[in-house]
Amino acid sequence: MHYHTFKMLEVIFILLALFAMWYAFSNFSSFKRIFIGRPMRNKELNAQHTKLFWILALPILSADLYSSVAYGPEAGITELLSLGESAKWLILPITFSTVFLLAILILSYIMGVIAYPNGGGAYAIAKDNFKSPYPSLVASSALLVDYILTVAVSVSAAVEAVSSAYPVVAPYETLLAILCVFLLVVINLRGVAESAVVFAYPTFFFMACMLFIIITGFTNEFHDGFVQNTTPPFGTFPQGLTTLLILKAFSSACSALTGIETISNAVPIFREPKQRSAIKTYIALGILTAVTLSGFAYHLYVKGVAPDPQNTMLSQLAEGYFGHGLVYQLIIWSTFIVLILAANSTFTGFPQLSAIVAADGYLPRALTNRGDRLGYSNGILSLAGLASILIIAFRAHTNALIPLYAIGVFLSFTVAQFGLLRRWKRVKDKSWQAKFAINLIGTVISAVVAVIFAVTKFTSGAWVVLIVLPLIVLFSCLIKKHYVEVANSLRIDPKVTRPEQHHIVSIVLVSGIHRVVNNTVSFAKSLGSEVIAVYVGFDDESIERMEHKWEEWGEPCRLVVLRSSYRSILEPITRFINAMEKWEGGKPDHIHIVVPQFIPKKWWHNILHNQNALLLRAWLFRHKDVIITTVPYHLEK
Amino acid sequence: MHYHTFKMLEVIFILLALFAMWYAFSNFSSFKRIFIGRPMRNKELNAQHTKLFWILALPILSADLYSSVAYGPEAGITELLSLGESAKWLILPITFSTVFLLAILILSYIMGVIAYPNGGGAYAIAKDNFKSPYPSLVASSALLVDYILTVAVSVSAAVEAVSSAYPVVAPYETLLAILCVFLLVVINLRGVAESAVVFAYPTFFFMACMLFIIITGFTNEFHDGFVQNTTPPFGTFPQGLTTLLILKAFSSACSALTGIETISNAVPIFREPKQRSAIKTYIALGILTAVTLSGFAYHLYVKGVAPDPQNTMLSQLAEGYFGHGLVYQLIIWSTFIVLILAANSTFTGFPQLSAIVAADGYLPRALTNRGDRLGYSNGILSLAGLASILIIAFRAHTNALIPLYAIGVFLSFTVAQFGLLRRWKRVKDKSWQAKFAINLIGTVISAVVAVIFAVTKFTSGAWVVLIVLPLIVLFSCLIKKHYVEVANSLRIDPKVTRPEQHHIVSIVLVSGIHRVVNNTVSFAKSLGSEVIAVYVGFDDESIERMEHKWEEWGEPCRLVVLRSSYRSILEPITRFINAMEKWEGGKPDHIHIVVPQFIPKKWWHNILHNQNALLLRAWLFRHKDVIITTVPYHLEK
Repeated sequence: MHYHTFKMLEVIFILLALFAMWYAFSNFSSFKRIFIGRPMRNKELNAQHTKLFWILALPILSADLYSSVAYGPEAGITELLSLGESAKWLILPITFSTVFLLAILILSYIMGVIAYPNGGGAYAIAKDNFKSPYPSLVASSALLVDYILTVAVSVSAAVEAVSSAYPVVAPYETLLAILCVFLLVVINLRGVAESAVVFAYPTFFFMACMLFIIITGFTNEFHDGFVQNTTPPFGTFPQGLTTLLILKAFSSACSALTGIETISNAVPIFREPKQRSAIKTYIALGILTAVTLSGFAYHLYVKGVAPDPQNTMLSQLAEGYFGHGLVYQLIIWSTFIVLILAANSTFTGFPQLSAIVAADGYLPRALTNRGDRLGYSNGILSLAGLASILIIAFRAHTNALIPLYAIGVFLSFTVAQFGLLRRWKRVKDKSWQAKFAINLIGTVISAVVAVIFAVTKFTSGAWVVLIVLPLIVLFSCLIKKHYVEVANSLRIDPKVTRPEQHHIVSIVLVSGIHRVVNNTVSFAKSLGSEVIAVYVGFDDESIERMEHKWEEWGEPCRLVVLRSSYRSILEPITRFINAMEKWEGGKPDHIHIVVPQFIPKKWWHNILHNQNALLLRAWLFRHKDVIITTVPYHLEK
Repeated sequence: MHYHTFKMLEVIFILLALFAMWYAFSNFSSFKRIFIGRPMRNKELNAQHTKLFWILALPILSADLYSSVAYGPEAGITELLSLGESAKWLILPITFSTVFLLAILILSYIMGVIAYPNGGGAYAIAKDNFKSPYPSLVASSALLVDYILTVAVSVSAAVEAVSSAYPVVAPYETLLAILCVFLLVVINLRGVAESAVVFAYPTFFFMACMLFIIITGFTNEFHDGFVQNTTPPFGTFPQGLTTLLILKAFSSACSALTGIETISNAVPIFREPKQRSAIKTYIALGILTAVTLSGFAYHLYVKGVAPDPQNTMLSQLAEGYFGHGLVYQLIIWSTFIVLILAANSTFTGFPQLSAIVAADGYLPRALTNRGDRLGYSNGILSLAGLASILIIAFRAHTNALIPLYAIGVFLSFTVAQFGLLRRWKRVKDKSWQAKFAINLIGTVISAVVAVIFAVTKFTSGAWVVLIVLPLIVLFSCLIKKHYVEVANSLRIDPKVTRPEQHHIVSIVLVSGIHRVVNNTVSFAKSLGSEVIAVYVGFDDESIERMEHKWEEWGEPCRLVVLRSSYRSILEPITRFINAMEKWEGGKPDHIHIVVPQFIPKKWWHNILHNQNALLLRAWLFRHKDVIITTVPYHLEK
């Protein structure tokens, strides 16, 4: 086939695709049914089958946290790369302190679940325990920004994992990442429980893979010894090691801890008893993550693996044990899937949190609308849109963002823990001192880590977070102010303010004497108010012809003819309305414009008819205080 | 600056750009003023200052034809490349027969201008001389398709010319080409005469460059002899030369002749006396083109230049005379400008032709709308859109399309000439026999060339043209049929059919008792027709509360409460309308739905209010026969 024959087919294909998009748009509802499924009734909201059994909730809600095991220890030790061989053993204390922090945080969050069985996210806790709205808004803004970053980072990392195994897809990374986001949108618009069933088993498989690597490592060490010839020396303090460097390494390793809050936000989606289920999930997840993190750190130390930007340490370890065969392929693909699931867990968290905040009036109210399938559609679409912008801007290479979102996470941890502290002091229920102590440790540690992040990463972009967060809080307050003001201005006393009789003048736009005009004039006259027909002419001849025809038609109402010098109908009509608004004495309360609109039988016939009515309507609505009635005329053919 | 700080700034930039686009869109009219200029009055349409003096019309209307000199002879001789050195002299007979054909065609078109002083394009001539609409539709479809191809080809060639001189822009060819199309749109929306003044001088400069090359060639030959050692042998018939090959070479060379019809289509844009001006322009253009084509062919023969895909023959010739210095740069840039002008001349032709065809009812009527600046805006935008699709699909490498559009050109030539033949026979004015003879030759030659094109280029894509053209003709006929049927169904006898009294029931959608609802109910009740308030509730509690409040409000009209099981307001309202349509006895003639709509003070406040009214309106309008009134409520704050 010739080159340009091929290209011609491409043009035809583009035109067909445009046509298909147009068709899909104009027949949106049936397409929606195919992709999204049948609508669900209100009462299905509380039905058990959209609720999650905890074993199924584990993969959905923990993918964000658990997937970080793949890069946490590496991120920490990379900061110490410049210190050479003698610093390698530091991967052990750094990872173990991360695991310790993980334990504290999970304990603190279990306290949160105990205190708030109906979903104790940082926002809800702060709202309940602080009079001022600012702590809760700081928490929610930080979390919402982090959710967006998580989607961008996880999807990009998933695509990168695949493209490092199959370099052929490398040029299409951005496109693939956007496609993945689109898929997540479709799945989440379908509803939560169904996506759990789809995704639960692959994540279990990933967890099994990770545990298999750790077991393989121990087997290897039983055979070849716990100190091998690759094992670096232990316990020496390398030259040049400063406190700042240790803090940097520690805070980078802590980026593995993002995602802990997902479960506490999502308590209501658990099957009953939801509180116990959530706590079980937390404990199971904590043990799994701790074992995996510690195991990896230990094996990496024994094998003396060093960071390499072309090949992750996890991948180096797996290669060392299994070579480049089937097991390696399985690990790559399960990594891909778990990273997509990390993004998916965010698609549960973001819409729920934004709906709660919007219900309080701090975000646009549209975020509280549930779609046909009971998901918060607007939240899902906003998340996908903002994450896609990040993916496109960073061309699907978003690793640099990972440390940034840790600030937001630890900021919201701190707010939540501090809120719980205030609660225990106020409520003073059974063994409140123990709970208080746990959350006190949690508060202090989260706050310290947040500050360490902000200081050590300030020049690497943390400043952006420190600008964006206050801005979001400011906008939230402005939105709340607007809603309060609108509600106040709309409130009436039903006993005092009652509907009144208004003086209405109806203006019918006529373009000639034909069936459409007959229909429109009939409607306007039947309403009973005063009717004026308005004709816009472009030259004397057409104006005279119209006046003559109107007389012949028996002058069903008063006719006003307007001359247009600019071929526009907007300008003379605006002039006429302005004049009416200044009518002395008889100025009407409402000017009521009646415009006919063609409704052709086939939607694509619309392109054949000038839709002046629509343009006129949009323009007048923006610029003048008029009431507009559109009278459809359904063409039979 | 760190990599991700930089990227962050990019994200902020993207968000700002999106915001700017949104702002520009919502303040469209002021942006339009800046780019397009003040609106012009109807009477300015016939004012002399938008009309063109013929010397200025020459560059505007001839760029399409004249720019082809750069590739015509080359396209012809390339077909004979395989025959070797001994075929090189054939560039002379092939080019001279092209020049001969040019002379015949220009003469024939001058006959057209004499016969049709008000614009004698192929479409107008065919319409006037054939009873059947098909010949004129074939001509107009062929020309419209060619105009689109011309824009794509010329703009792409212009960008390629620049990028071969400056390889640094090569990766951005598609983007640059689209930008050029956008620029042409802006210039043409501003109006015809102004663009002439902008573009006339650079084209003159290109013409001067071309003539300068030819004169330099002759000077060179006076010095170094008319037979140089590079000159190939003359007059030998190479082995393997077949009739088909000669025809192929001839037809490829004839692709240089596209664009002749532009002047005859555009007679009305000339300054008076327009007929004489158009003929003067034709003669000047014919002489210029003939001299340039012949001169090039001769010098190319003397220098023995061979086709080279990396370097055009014209560029090789110029390099031979002037080296790679300033003169070469000037030639490259003037080539760029003249090719852009070739596209620009099409922006004059396409909108005019499509407006004429649309006025006859064979294309969507919107193409006849003149914009603020008197240009046919919809035609200009359609042309730019379709050409952009071709440019994107072919990644700005559209050379392969050049021979294709020659088919359309010669097809329309044939139709026009044949129409003129019929006219001379019918009118029989002064010396009609001579005119008849000229057009007879023109008809036969155009027809033969069109057939040669279709046969020799069939497998290289001509089949696409032979499929697309009949389809366009078919669609044109369907459009005409639709308009005729609509006009018939709308026609009434003003003495018989008069406005009647209709029974109207107004439905007011209420969401509670507040100021907006008070305003809407007041309006509906003041109209005087029967009013029913409809409330959609999602649960029993809200329904009871509403019923109680309504009572407290003094029941200004009947209240109907509907329950929604799917959180949708569309579904219960549709059910209610369906029920009303089946009311026995009292079925109303019109169901009139009154919906309130918030108009916030700041346009961006719209995002804070659920625009359910708009969605409801769009949906009901498509699916039900109801009249919809939108009552604006202007928020004071």
